[in-house]
Amino acid sequence: MTVTPAERADIVKRLIHPRSIAVIGASADLGKINGRPLKHLLEKGYGGQILPVNPKYTEIAGLPCFPSIAQLPVAADLAIVAVPASEVLVCIEALGKRGIRAAVIFSSGFGEMGIAGKALEQSLVDQARASGVVLCGPNCLGFINAFDNVYATFSQYADGDTGSGPIAFVTQSGAFGTAIAALVRQRGLGLGYFINTGNEIDLAFSELMMAVIEDPRIRVAAGYLEGLDDGAALVRLAQRCQALGKPLVLTKVGRMASGARAAASHTGALAVEDAVFDAVIRQYGVLRARNEEQMLDILEALSQPRAAQGFGLGIATQSGGAGVMMADRAEEMGLSVPELSAPIRARLATVMPAFGAAGNPVDVTGQFVARPELLRESVVALLDDPDIHIGIVWLQLMTAHVDTLVRIFAEIQARTTKPFFVCWVAAPAEAIQRLRAMGIVVYSAGERAVEAASALARYCEFQRRATVDGRSASVRETTLPPVIVNGVQPSVQATEWLRHAGIPMATVSLAKTEDEAVLLWRTAGRAVALKVESPDITHKTEIGGVLLKLNDEAAIRDGYQLLMRRAKQALPDARLSGILVQPMASGHLELVVGVQRDSVFGMIVMVGLGGVLVEVLKDVVFRRAPFDTEEGLRMLAELRMGALLDGVRGQPAVDRNAIARLLSDLAQWAYGMAPVLAELDLNPVMVGPEGPIAVDCVMVLHDERGGGDKAS
Amino acid sequence: MTVTPAERADIVKRLIHPRSIAVIGASADLGKINGRPLKHLLEKGYGGQILPVNPKYTEIAGLPCFPSIAQLPVAADLAIVAVPASEVLVCIEALGKRGIRAAVIFSSGFGEMGIAGKALEQSLVDQARASGVVLCGPNCLGFINAFDNVYATFSQYADGDTGSGPIAFVTQSGAFGTAIAALVRQRGLGLGYFINTGNEIDLAFSELMMAVIEDPRIRVAAGYLEGLDDGAALVRLAQRCQALGKPLVLTKVGRMASGARAAASHTGALAVEDAVFDAVIRQYGVLRARNEEQMLDILEALSQPRAAQGFGLGIATQSGGAGVMMADRAEEMGLSVPELSAPIRARLATVMPAFGAAGNPVDVTGQFVARPELLRESVVALLDDPDIHIGIVWLQLMTAHVDTLVRIFAEIQARTTKPFFVCWVAAPAEAIQRLRAMGIVVYSAGERAVEAASALARYCEFQRRATVDGRSASVRETTLPPVIVNGVQPSVQATEWLRHAGIPMATVSLAKTEDEAVLLWRTAGRAVALKVESPDITHKTEIGGVLLKLNDEAAIRDGYQLLMRRAKQALPDARLSGILVQPMASGHLELVVGVQRDSVFGMIVMVGLGGVLVEVLKDVVFRRAPFDTEEGLRMLAELRMGALLDGVRGQPAVDRNAIARLLSDLAQWAYGMAPVLAELDLNPVMVGPEGPIAVDCVMVLHDERGGGDKAS
Repeated sequence: MTVTPAERADIVKRLIHPRSIAVIGASADLGKINGRPLKHLLEKGYGGQILPVNPKYTEIAGLPCFPSIAQLPVAADLAIVAVPASEVLVCIEALGKRGIRAAVIFSSGFGEMGIAGKALEQSLVDQARASGVVLCGPNCLGFINAFDNVYATFSQYADGDTGSGPIAFVTQSGAFGTAIAALVRQRGLGLGYFINTGNEIDLAFSELMMAVIEDPRIRVAAGYLEGLDDGAALVRLAQRCQALGKPLVLTKVGRMASGARAAASHTGALAVEDAVFDAVIRQYGVLRARNEEQMLDILEALSQPRAAQGFGLGIATQSGGAGVMMADRAEEMGLSVPELSAPIRARLATVMPAFGAAGNPVDVTGQFVARPELLRESVVALLDDPDIHIGIVWLQLMTAHVDTLVRIFAEIQARTTKPFFVCWVAAPAEAIQRLRAMGIVVYSAGERAVEAASALARYCEFQRRATVDGRSASVRETTLPPVIVNGVQPSVQATEWLRHAGIPMATVSLAKTEDEAVLLWRTAGRAVALKVESPDITHKTEIGGVLLKLNDEAAIRDGYQLLMRRAKQALPDARLSGILVQPMASGHLELVVGVQRDSVFGMIVMVGLGGVLVEVLKDVVFRRAPFDTEEGLRMLAELRMGALLDGVRGQPAVDRNAIARLLSDLAQWAYGMAPVLAELDLNPVMVGPEGPIAVDCVMVLHDERGGGDKAS
Repeated sequence: MTVTPAERADIVKRLIHPRSIAVIGASADLGKINGRPLKHLLEKGYGGQILPVNPKYTEIAGLPCFPSIAQLPVAADLAIVAVPASEVLVCIEALGKRGIRAAVIFSSGFGEMGIAGKALEQSLVDQARASGVVLCGPNCLGFINAFDNVYATFSQYADGDTGSGPIAFVTQSGAFGTAIAALVRQRGLGLGYFINTGNEIDLAFSELMMAVIEDPRIRVAAGYLEGLDDGAALVRLAQRCQALGKPLVLTKVGRMASGARAAASHTGALAVEDAVFDAVIRQYGVLRARNEEQMLDILEALSQPRAAQGFGLGIATQSGGAGVMMADRAEEMGLSVPELSAPIRARLATVMPAFGAAGNPVDVTGQFVARPELLRESVVALLDDPDIHIGIVWLQLMTAHVDTLVRIFAEIQARTTKPFFVCWVAAPAEAIQRLRAMGIVVYSAGERAVEAASALARYCEFQRRATVDGRSASVRETTLPPVIVNGVQPSVQATEWLRHAGIPMATVSLAKTEDEAVLLWRTAGRAVALKVESPDITHKTEIGGVLLKLNDEAAIRDGYQLLMRRAKQALPDARLSGILVQPMASGHLELVVGVQRDSVFGMIVMVGLGGVLVEVLKDVVFRRAPFDTEEGLRMLAELRMGALLDGVRGQPAVDRNAIARLLSDLAQWAYGMAPVLAELDLNPVMVGPEGPIAVDCVMVLHDERGGGDKAS
């Protein structure tokens, strides 16, 4: 049964906002997995129809219970399936027949259970498709729509208070997700939606988040990920969040490289899953939280409505040391802690006690206990400085002064339009609750407050930038070669394609004889490099297949013979096409530039600083194609050794714009070539005062259009 | 009045364990700063004599109050001074006359208050010395000795429960220190001592900590620092802690470089305060906590008595994702997450449910709620693996199962001798309290548990190593030159000294004429470098004063003239000694090695990877001299680009031992030269298959013996 995209969207909407819910396999024991949804729906006041299905009962908790799906009086908007794995397929078939189009499957025993489980899961996919039923799960805790009191879940999180709030939280992990939801509750932030996606055989993370992010009551999207198949869907989600002005915050486990993959190019070897994920989500303005605590800290900063108009942080403390610690962390996190303007310094001097410090950080000392206006006027003055965009006030304990301090913070909040956070170490619980109730953001540790402020500033900066440049790199048409041979491409051919795409490539010609090589050298009129050319030799230097700076006939002739001999010795069966002749390029810096077709995110462009810096430091940066030159410049800004581009040890600076243009042009071309381009290395790209020029390239094609040549 | 070291030690001991306490300027209002110590001493049951002094009262809170210090009936072991700054000096004089030898000064208005305050502070120093009174403070919150109920403090921390515990905490900051103390209390860890050092005009951090660390009831020393004058005292403290088997954990604010200092050498420019502090404390086995939260996490891990016999971490979770996150963090923190042995895997397979993972991390899933023995047997099996040295169990919520889980964790604790931590996210408060009461370490977040485990493992590793090598690099005698000229030393002289100290130095000779240069080249029998030599030119390359690889007579003669011309052009007034002739050294790697006399820690040796890696990446490592070759090897292991030493891009590996020997020999020599050596750069040290050889050196002497030549 075919479901159109519009129908599917409608079914998903009904799944999340059901007017009626059937609970298949409902238990009369409301403490069990198959009883808990009933308990929550009843206790928390779900307004729609609840329809338990179980032949063993005629009634559960006062509700009529139906003996089978077929006998349900209505085609419910949602079915909760809580039966053993072996019964799930029959269930789905029955749901389809009864006209029920959406199901959440709690049952485990599928893909997570080895080969037999995977086979059963595939059958479930097939059954759902045949029956036209859209699935969430299996092996999931279900979901909560707190606005409408929909508790299609057996998560422990539902046991406590689950008051609605501005955060939509979608999690791939049940256990970790429940923990995060409970932490959100501890902070009093409130989840509007809690959704556990389980094995994601049908509805996956991005589609479910996309369905709830439109809700005007949702202000922030939060996600916990363990893996991702559909990068394009995540990018669409990020773009939609950007358009709606709602931040997307993700925690994804699996930071470390899971071992090098087999790849012909450096780019392929370096473009490991997490590095690409991290780069791409940053490119589209997603904030990544490194763990659950940082997730909560960032959510709290983003749940308040004020935007940061820049990266200037103002810090007020009652401890000089805490100020230094926060200022240090601010610098590490890309915030500035600006000097204050003269008028603001003068204002501070009138309110500050003599032994406080009237700079930034401003140390108000413990004197504010005696004179509360001291704290208030200092912080307001600090926030009035035009270079300050976010404020943090640090204090500790003060159990005896909660009333006074809560009042002061409320007054500060009312006298500024800038976001300001309280960092209250070892705070009385009452103080935190009262501040949060007033919409004031509170942290328990200085560095955490700074990290959250940094996330807010980065989000706001991305939104400003996105508004200005529209994120719409215009994509040029690329004419794909009609028929290709899969595998490593001949250098002359590859160079020609890239030059046609606007990439500055060093001239290269193939000599099939010694005499041809000499002629090519004479034509070049300068020193040349000779390189062995063979479809079977990807890394020429490894077999000694490159000779540099040859500039007389004898050297050319000797070199030609030497390279042919070396290639035959190293790889007796290699097909030798001849020797490439290339005029020597100049440039004092080496870059590595490349493209990798990523199974999740598509065409990924990489730039790195060459030589040992790539090999040992792995100083490389990734972006998803296509992108514009502004994005190329941002890539260069992210290189750890990027200072080399500006000239060190007496070397001249290079033209960052020219490199950014190369990256953007390559990204445009690679995007168009996506169906056939598997990997590309431009290594090295020499960069000197005249701009970048690629002097070697390895291009691997693999046609995925279906009709291509699958040989080699 | 002179106080001998033995007398001073005795006075400090009495200060901390007083049999009688006078409170100078005591207030009858027990809520005020000068009333609070009385309140706490009375309420918390101090067993000694309490002697309030204030002419305004005859009695405070039932205690007789004395009109003046002179009229005190006994020479109290300790005086608490809580009078205005202007009255403190008179007070100290009176204390001395009455035979009271120790005082804690709460009063502020000294060094923290600008020039006038600094002058008053110097007078206080003089008065205390003249009166033979040992001071803690001024401008401090005082201290608590919780074992003897000594509350010589007005800190807010004293308001709540201050039950004693195994941690001695000394803090330079009052406000931040109070916050940390309150956090320790929240964790139920317990402070045996809480000491705020204030302005440290007499007793400073290390001496006070040294006085309390000997107490057998103390198991861990914790410190909060903002600055340090006496590095040698901190090193002695660290060594004493090591000998006692008590870890020292420090948080120090001020991580970021406070701007480059003016220095003739690279080493001087790179050896900024925090980098040196960080390296030196690590060298002596001190653990550094980056902030107050990490401090608490580490203290909790170290307060339990079990040692980790290695770096192998075993992880059990009910969430695969949490396991991945913790394993990633473990790798970043230097822990391993080993594969389990075949017998342990077999044991796990018998207890694990089919859909859990029986590796490491082991995923026990939520099934343990139904079968608690599953969790217990899995974790015990994991901890029985010989490659596992610390265990972490991760779980969340489980509000309904606290009794069961507490019992299981107690059983696990009883069945292993290895340290194991519980990480319980969003835990019921009751569960945490009960586990901590049983001596089980509990964390609230997975990464924090891993970081604490790493700290425990690193501490135990340091203790093992210290026991083996005794930390006693034998120090050779260095004969100091009797008279020196301050400033940059002539290259030939400096080279000669270093060669005599066993440092491999490239031969260098000074030619005063062209003919001499030619003769020296002929004697070398190979290509040479020419370098201009002048006491006024420190960085020869910057004026084009170095020519490399000259190997015929004409080149030598031309080079000689060229360098003399360049030097005269660049610095017309420079004194030109001649031209250095040095046979070209070989080696494919460049190191920078140096020495810096640090005002806090003394002679500091640096090693770094040369060229752009030092300039942009600042890939350098420091150690305090002297040290042995083992420590030299550890320096090399800490270089971020250290993989270069093992050969990349086809280059051969170099001999790490030979470099470590150079570092150790240099450290020995520099230690002996401490009175006269200010800075030294060996830059570059070329390293090839034949070992390291220094080809250029800049040595700056500055005689601090008093009798030296202070010219230049």
